[in-house]
Amino acid sequence: MIVTLLSDFGTADYFAGAMRGAVLAAEPRAQVVDITHEVPAHDVEAGAFTLAAACGAFPAGTVHVAVVDPGVGSERAALIVEAAGQLFVGPDNGLFGHVYERAGESLRVHRLPPAEHFNPQASSTFHGRDLFAPVAGRLAGGETPAQLGAVGTAEFVRLPLARPHRRPDATLEAAVIHVDRFGNLVTNLTPQQLDEDALECGRARLLVGGREVRAFRRFYAEGRGDASEPFAIWGSAGFLEISVNRASAARALGAGRGHEVIVTCHSSLL
Amino acid sequence: MIVTLLSDFGTADYFAGAMRGAVLAAEPRAQVVDITHEVPAHDVEAGAFTLAAACGAFPAGTVHVAVVDPGVGSERAALIVEAAGQLFVGPDNGLFGHVYERAGESLRVHRLPPAEHFNPQASSTFHGRDLFAPVAGRLAGGETPAQLGAVGTAEFVRLPLARPHRRPDATLEAAVIHVDRFGNLVTNLTPQQLDEDALECGRARLLVGGREVRAFRRFYAEGRGDASEPFAIWGSAGFLEISVNRASAARALGAGRGHEVIVTCHSSLL
Amino acid sequence: MIVTLLSDFGTADYFAGAMRGAVLAAEPRAQVVDITHEVPAHDVEAGAFTLAAACGAFPAGTVHVAVVDPGVGSERAALIVEAAGQLFVGPDNGLFGHVYERAGESLRVHRLPPAEHFNPQASSTFHGRDLFAPVAGRLAGGETPAQLGAVGTAEFVRLPLARPHRRPDATLEAAVIHVDRFGNLVTNLTPQQLDEDALECGRARLLVGGREVRAFRRFYAEGRGDASEPFAIWGSAGFLEISVNRASAARALGAGRGHEVIVTCHSSLL
Repeated sequence: MIVTLLSDFGTADYFAGAMRGAVLAAEPRAQVVDITHEVPAHDVEAGAFTLAAACGAFPAGTVHVAVVDPGVGSERAALIVEAAGQLFVGPDNGLFGHVYERAGESLRVHRLPPAEHFNPQASSTFHGRDLFAPVAGRLAGGETPAQLGAVGTAEFVRLPLARPHRRPDATLEAAVIHVDRFGNLVTNLTPQQLDEDALECGRARLLVGGREVRAFRRFYAEGRGDASEPFAIWGSAGFLEISVNRASAARALGAGRGHEVIVTCHSSLL
Repeated sequence: MIVTLLSDFGTADYFAGAMRGAVLAAEPRAQVVDITHEVPAHDVEAGAFTLAAACGAFPAGTVHVAVVDPGVGSERAALIVEAAGQLFVGPDNGLFGHVYERAGESLRVHRLPPAEHFNPQASSTFHGRDLFAPVAGRLAGGETPAQLGAVGTAEFVRLPLARPHRRPDATLEAAVIHVDRFGNLVTNLTPQQLDEDALECGRARLLVGGREVRAFRRFYAEGRGDASEPFAIWGSAGFLEISVNRASAARALGAGRGHEVIVTCHSSLL
Repeated sequence: MIVTLLSDFGTADYFAGAMRGAVLAAEPRAQVVDITHEVPAHDVEAGAFTLAAACGAFPAGTVHVAVVDPGVGSERAALIVEAAGQLFVGPDNGLFGHVYERAGESLRVHRLPPAEHFNPQASSTFHGRDLFAPVAGRLAGGETPAQLGAVGTAEFVRLPLARPHRRPDATLEAAVIHVDRFGNLVTNLTPQQLDEDALECGRARLLVGGREVRAFRRFYAEGRGDASEPFAIWGSAGFLEISVNRASAARALGAGRGHEVIVTCHSSLL
C-alpha cells in the first residue's frame, strides 16, 4: 500500500505536506514516499522523464501521484492510468507520456469525474490536494477506478517525445533529454537504437555541443584515457549518457536539455 | 499514528534525519512525514503560516512537530497544543499562532516539563531531537499530555498576526503574508473580509506594489485578458492571492512578504 | 523495520525515488525515511559526518543505506556493517569511518558479493538502486548478512579522520569538520579533548580565522556579551561548535570546513 508523490511544488511550501496529508486522510495505512517535488515549475516534459525513470523500481501495486499541472481548474481531464501492474493518478497533459510508451498491452486509461464529485469544496487551484491525492489514497485502499467513477477512455494526451531519427547522410540525430545533478547529459538513445559494441570499439563517434565524444565506459570511475575527457556510458534510466568523471559534462560541453547529439557510426548495425 | 515534521533545519544537515529517528525511537509504529524543513532560518512567522496551511489536510489524530526555535535552551516554554482533533508539539514562541486562531472551542494548551525531565542528557541546542520528537512519538503511541507531565496553561505566545484593517477613507489595507515557489503573492484577505462577487464583477480594485489588479480568475490558466496581466484568485490556503499565469507575480509586481495590498471597492459589501 | 537513506543524489532527480522504490520492492513493510540526499556530490567525508551525527537517534535494528559512491562499478567493495545494534549498507570507501570509530566491540564488517549476484541486470552506475537498497530491504525483512552471501572481513577503508593534536608549544590544533545550514562551525573537539570548565571560565581561548573566540555559551540565545560576538558551544553532534546568535559564524569569521582552530588554554586539564 505504497503511494508515491511527484510534483513541481518544491518542498519549501505547504503544498507537498498537504498532499501527503490528503493521501493519509483517505487511507491512513498508506506509506507515502516522494519521488520528487522539484520538477521545474510547469515543466511537464521533465516530470514525465523523472516519473518514468523512477517508477520501475517500485513494486507492483504502487500508486503514483504526479502533479505538474499548469492547467489545473481548466477543462483538462484528470486520469487514472494502469500500466505494468502499477497505477498513476494525475492530469491529462502528457505527464504520463513515457509511461504510455513502456506500458504495451498493459495500458488502461480512465478519466476521472470532476473534482467536485469527490469534494464539493474542492479548490480550482490545488487538485494535488483536493483530487489526485484522495483518489490515490482510495486506490491504495483497494477501490477500483470504476468505484471511483472513472471511465475508460482512448483519448488522452501523449507527450511529443523527441526520438532519434536517421538523416539522409546516415548519421543519427538524437537529443539531450535530461541533465542530472551530476551534470550527466542523458540522451534519448537506447540500446535498441545504438549498438553498444559499435561505441565501445571506437566505431561510433558522438558530436555534442560541437565536440567529439569517442570514449565509452562501463562505469564512471573507469580509468581509460584522460580523466577530464567526456565519455559515453549506459545510464541507469536506460539511455546513453555523456559524462565526465567527477565533473559536470553539461558544463564541460556547454550542453543542456534539447541540445542535439549526432551519432556517426561505421558499424553495420547503425 | 502519523507524525509530521516542520522545521527550519533544511534537509542537507543531520537535523531532520535525527528528528525522524527520535520519533521512531519513541514509537517505531509511527509514520513520519514531512511538512517542510525549509522554513527560512529563525522565521517563526513563515513557519506558522506553512504549518497552518498544511495541517488541515491531515486526518484527525495526527501529531505535528514544529521546530523554528531560536530560543532553544532558554526559558521559553515547550508546548503540546490540542486543536481541531490534532496535536501540535513545539516551542512557545508564536509558531502555533494561526492554529490558535482557527481552533475555536477545541483549543487546549499544555506546557511541557523541561527537556531534562525526559532525558537527563538532553542537549540545550537541539530540542527538536531531544524533546519535541520523543514527546510526539509518545503522543502518537497513545500517551496523554498529562501522562507526559504537561499541565494546562492559559498563558502562551500568540503571534502578532497582520490583519487587514479599514482605513478612514473606507479602503481596506491588507498585506502580503507569504510568497510561494511559483511567485504567487498570498495576502491576508479571506472571504469573510472580501466579497468575491465584488472582485469578480470588477467592482473591487487592488493596489499592489503601486500597480492596479482588476482581474479575478477562478483558476490559473483561465483565459481572460492579457496572459501576462496579474490577477486575483482564491488560493488553496484560504486567502486571496495575486498571480500571473505561468510567471511570478512577485517578480512582475516587485512585491514580497509584508508589502501592502490596498483594496478599493465600490461594492456595498465592503 | 526502518530503513534510512543517505546519499549525494539530491532530491530533484529520479535517484532518491528509485532507491526508495527498490527498498520497498525488497520489503514492502519497511518504513523508508531520509537522513539526507544533499551530501555534496562525491564528498565521502561530509557524508560520513552526517550519517554518524544522525544515526544515533534511530532505534536499534535500523538499517541505514549510505551511498556517496564515486567508485560505483569499479573494484571497490560493498559492505554490510553491524555497529551498536544497527546495520549499515554501502560502498567501502570510508563513508562509515565515524561509525567504525564509535562502534567499539560491537563492530562487524561484512563484504557483499558483486551486484550481479543479486540481479543479473544490475547497472554499473547505480548500485544505490541495484545493490544497496535491495540488500537493505532484505536485512530489514530479517535476512542475515550470511544469508545474503556476505562474508566477514577485517579489511575495509577507514576514513582519514582529522583529529586534534597537541603542538610542541602545548596549544591544541583542531579543525572545522562541518558547517551547518545556520553557519555554525562544527570542530573536531570533543569533551574528551577539551575541558568544558576551562572554556567556560575564560581560561581557554580559541583562534578561528585569525579571530579570538573567548565566550562560551550553553545555548544559542544565551545573553552574554555582544550579541554579534562569536562564541563556543557544545553542539548536538557531540563536538564543540563556533556560533553567532541568529547569524552565520562561517560568514562572520570567514571560516569553513578544513579551517584550523587553535586552542590555547591556561587550564591544567589541557
